[in-house]
Amino acid sequence: MDELPGALGTSASLALRLGQAIFSIASLLFMCLDVEFYSYTAFCFLVTIMGLVIPWSLTLAMVDAFSVFVKRPSRQPGIMSIVVMGDWVLCFLSLAASCSSAGVTDLLMVSGGSFCSAKICGRYQLSAAMAFLSWFLSLASSLFNLWLLASF
Amino acid sequence: MDELPGALGTSASLALRLGQAIFSIASLLFMCLDVEFYSYTAFCFLVTIMGLVIPWSLTLAMVDAFSVFVKRPSRQPGIMSIVVMGDWVLCFLSLAASCSSAGVTDLLMVSGGSFCSAKICGRYQLSAAMAFLSWFLSLASSLFNLWLLASF
Repeated sequence: MDELPGALGTSASLALRLGQAIFSIASLLFMCLDVEFYSYTAFCFLVTIMGLVIPWSLTLAMVDAFSVFVKRPSRQPGIMSIVVMGDWVLCFLSLAASCSSAGVTDLLMVSGGSFCSAKICGRYQLSAAMAFLSWFLSLASSLFNLWLLASF
Repeated sequence: MDELPGALGTSASLALRLGQAIFSIASLLFMCLDVEFYSYTAFCFLVTIMGLVIPWSLTLAMVDAFSVFVKRPSRQPGIMSIVVMGDWVLCFLSLAASCSSAGVTDLLMVSGGSFCSAKICGRYQLSAAMAFLSWFLSLASSLFNLWLLASF
């Protein structure tokens, strides 16, 4: 059970975490390149959640990198439960943020160019899509870690 | 482990399922009392998902009622995995639907009375809130059933 791919401390997990961090950073950048997002609650929520996901993913990516390249630390059930809990909470929050931004972006696109120009609307759409991809990778990590926790 | 409250076939599960069905029906009614929801993608998504959650919850509520009041059928891991899988999928979908409707409703409220009157906006808000409550109960059922499946 120690070699479950995707669980904390494996190279698959490192790839998942790096993917989460890259997609979250991309989502944040696409959203924040102008300051107009500030007038929409859903976009502020997305920025907040991405600001939580990025440090979380990067921290766990560092743990994974240490575990892969230096030496494997012993996995304690207590630490694993904290990781699983945080993963699940962030997973739900990032799904909520990406879906609400997608809904708002869609409404802005449909209502024509009165709220946002085509260029900025496209950027919002990309941002929501990146957040969705980040959620997907986050779900994968959560499932693998939950599986590992259940196998203790 | 057979007496885990909230898992399939107990009275707590019956209460959770009935709560899900009631909140979903309330959400659907608040949304569909006029036909204007049809012009917003997020609201159509909410109506679709609530239309999936209602029969699912009612079917499982009937199974629970049969199990509580008549006799307890044997729980097979195969059937339990289907129930857990369906629960999780519907849980994520209903979170996505309620968050996107909440985002769109918030945008409609902020943009003033140009898109919806105060009465209809309030109704959309109630609908999103009911969908969120239904998601919460659905999450509880999913967790209890997953726990039961893990204890097999």
